[in-house]
Amino acid sequence: MADLGKEVKLVGSTNSLFTCRPRVALNLKGVDYDFLQEKWWQKSDLLLESNPVYKKMPVLIHNNKPVCESMIIVEYIDETWTSKGPSILPPDPYDRAMSRFWTAYSDDKFPSLLRVLMGPIPGDIPEAREQFVASLQLLEAALKKCSKGKIFFGGDNIGYLDIALGSHFGWIEATEKLAGIRLLEKETVPRLVEWSEHYFAHPAVKDIMPTTEELVAFVTEVKSTLSAPAK
Amino acid sequence: MADLGKEVKLVGSTNSLFTCRPRVALNLKGVDYDFLQEKWWQKSDLLLESNPVYKKMPVLIHNNKPVCESMIIVEYIDETWTSKGPSILPPDPYDRAMSRFWTAYSDDKFPSLLRVLMGPIPGDIPEAREQFVASLQLLEAALKKCSKGKIFFGGDNIGYLDIALGSHFGWIEATEKLAGIRLLEKETVPRLVEWSEHYFAHPAVKDIMPTTEELVAFVTEVKSTLSAPAK
Repeated sequence: MADLGKEVKLVGSTNSLFTCRPRVALNLKGVDYDFLQEKWWQKSDLLLESNPVYKKMPVLIHNNKPVCESMIIVEYIDETWTSKGPSILPPDPYDRAMSRFWTAYSDDKFPSLLRVLMGPIPGDIPEAREQFVASLQLLEAALKKCSKGKIFFGGDNIGYLDIALGSHFGWIEATEKLAGIRLLEKETVPRLVEWSEHYFAHPAVKDIMPTTEELVAFVTEVKSTLSAPAK
Repeated sequence: MADLGKEVKLVGSTNSLFTCRPRVALNLKGVDYDFLQEKWWQKSDLLLESNPVYKKMPVLIHNNKPVCESMIIVEYIDETWTSKGPSILPPDPYDRAMSRFWTAYSDDKFPSLLRVLMGPIPGDIPEAREQFVASLQLLEAALKKCSKGKIFFGGDNIGYLDIALGSHFGWIEATEKLAGIRLLEKETVPRLVEWSEHYFAHPAVKDIMPTTEELVAFVTEVKSTLSAPAK
């Protein structure tokens, strides 16, 4: 059997938490890949050719065919390397629907709130914090249901919703530092705090996540470049 | 074997094109269901209980468990009634990723442009029309690739992306009437025009789609109610 892993390339950035999604999935499946680092201030020709519609990373290139959008890539990985590693989406259709629902919910809510809390988008910080915490409380309840008493949304293993949520949670500590507020607290969402500790310590995750210091430095650099007068 | 079809309810509205998505999927699979009609001006307790997060139709209730978000419902239907009717998502992982990508693209672009063109959201109508036509041209190219020379995005059968796009295309004629413009033209997107004719004439589709007159009347009613002074 041909090794499907040899023709896999991932176009992304080590600072991009959306790029971490397919990287976690490829790690879980044990698929080898070439990582092609993008610069945030200058898009590569390969990225522009591979994702002409959105011109955004990450893009997975498998046997010269590009797949775009982080969670679509995760699902592609799950469906392509079915016999490698654990299944990323749960087997039961209802559980799959719940994973997709809460993933869509998280992608709908968290990025816009995080942008307000970190500063690039003007907004009411206390109100954004309140909405963020309310969303976490909904996910705390979802975790109790989806995990069936286990650690992860996927049960004993990291699954689709864990990967989706991990990319938003990766921003939490950096956001807390940048905004000088607390978002994730044991008193409010104890199960999510425990989930977060286990997720970021997992072997498929811990070595590829940018550190809080790197994210704070990255946001500070982007802000200062964007606010600098044009030369 | 138990008849899974007996415990299926769909909460939605005959005027809602997002509701048409699961209805087409249920028709394709030949699944019997109870249709529970919602009023747009007053949400039922069942809807509020079944979709407490978004409080939106459609909701599929199967064996008393609710599934929300129209395309998540379509995928749930495909994965639950696997042996009934044709498969809605294509079998190949790359083709599945393409279906998901263009569905996400359509959901990202069309609803906001249609709202501007129909009037409820203020905006630049010529610019919205230009963007709408540009999106159609991208989909014309996608149709050529996905259909592999057949009629539908799904090939010989209606598939996932056909169902997704059908709900946006259902608005086109009504929007053209309300805005007094043309959007879908043979000279620009000949394959999509042909696709549209076949899609809306398909037995799984034709009897459940609201007519242009019904949609125009619905939008006019909503606009006049929303602009009326409070009693």
